Amino acid sequence: MDELLAGHLQELRRGTAVMAALAILREPTYGYALLERLAEAGFAVDANTLYPLLRRLEKQGLLVSEWNTEESRPRKFYRVSPDGEALLEALLQEWQALHTSIERLR
Amino acid sequence: MDELLAGHLQELRRGTAVMAALAILREPTYGYALLERLAEAGFAVDANTLYPLLRRLEKQGLLVSEWNTEESRPRKFYRVSPDGEALLEALLQEWQALHTSIERLR
Repeated sequence: MDELLAGHLQELRRGTAVMAALAILREPTYGYALLERLAEAGFAVDANTLYPLLRRLEKQGLLVSEWNTEESRPRKFYRVSPDGEALLEALLQEWQALHTSIERLR
Repeated sequence: MDELLAGHLQELRRGTAVMAALAILREPTYGYALLERLAEAGFAVDANTLYPLLRRLEKQGLLVSEWNTEESRPRKFYRVSPDGEALLEALLQEWQALHTSIERLR
């Protein structure tokens, strides 16, 4: 039953990580800081999932990245592109619609 | 962009169909009626997705089924098992936690 529960919970969470990452990346953020912000916000995403996700979202044109070399250690900052913002809005709307539907079924 | 959006929306919806079906099946319901109830509730699930899902959930012990032969056309009624109810509660709790997290990020 535990394994079953874990699988169904994972299915429910899938997709929310993208939405959460896009929402946080309305402000430019580097990978490790994003991991921390996600964890603080209650989205348990591990680094092995997040970094490939960031590359995928950048390839899809939803994020843009830029190296910041002003500090002692250069870091790659990501932020949402205009397409990423549009996608985020659509995901948030869909989430709200799903939430309303689920509340009705409770 | 449309295709990209469709993919991300689908990821977001995945998992909600299980939760919605389990919630509806707290009352015994046959397949076609469940499809209708899901659509009314705002969960667009098609028959080709729903019937395999019902079989999977029954195999996982989350649903039980029974033929009702009292009416002119025999129909298989599904309802949640005690394990299914426990899973439903866990999914609803997780959904609520995700919703709270997402609201904070909006």
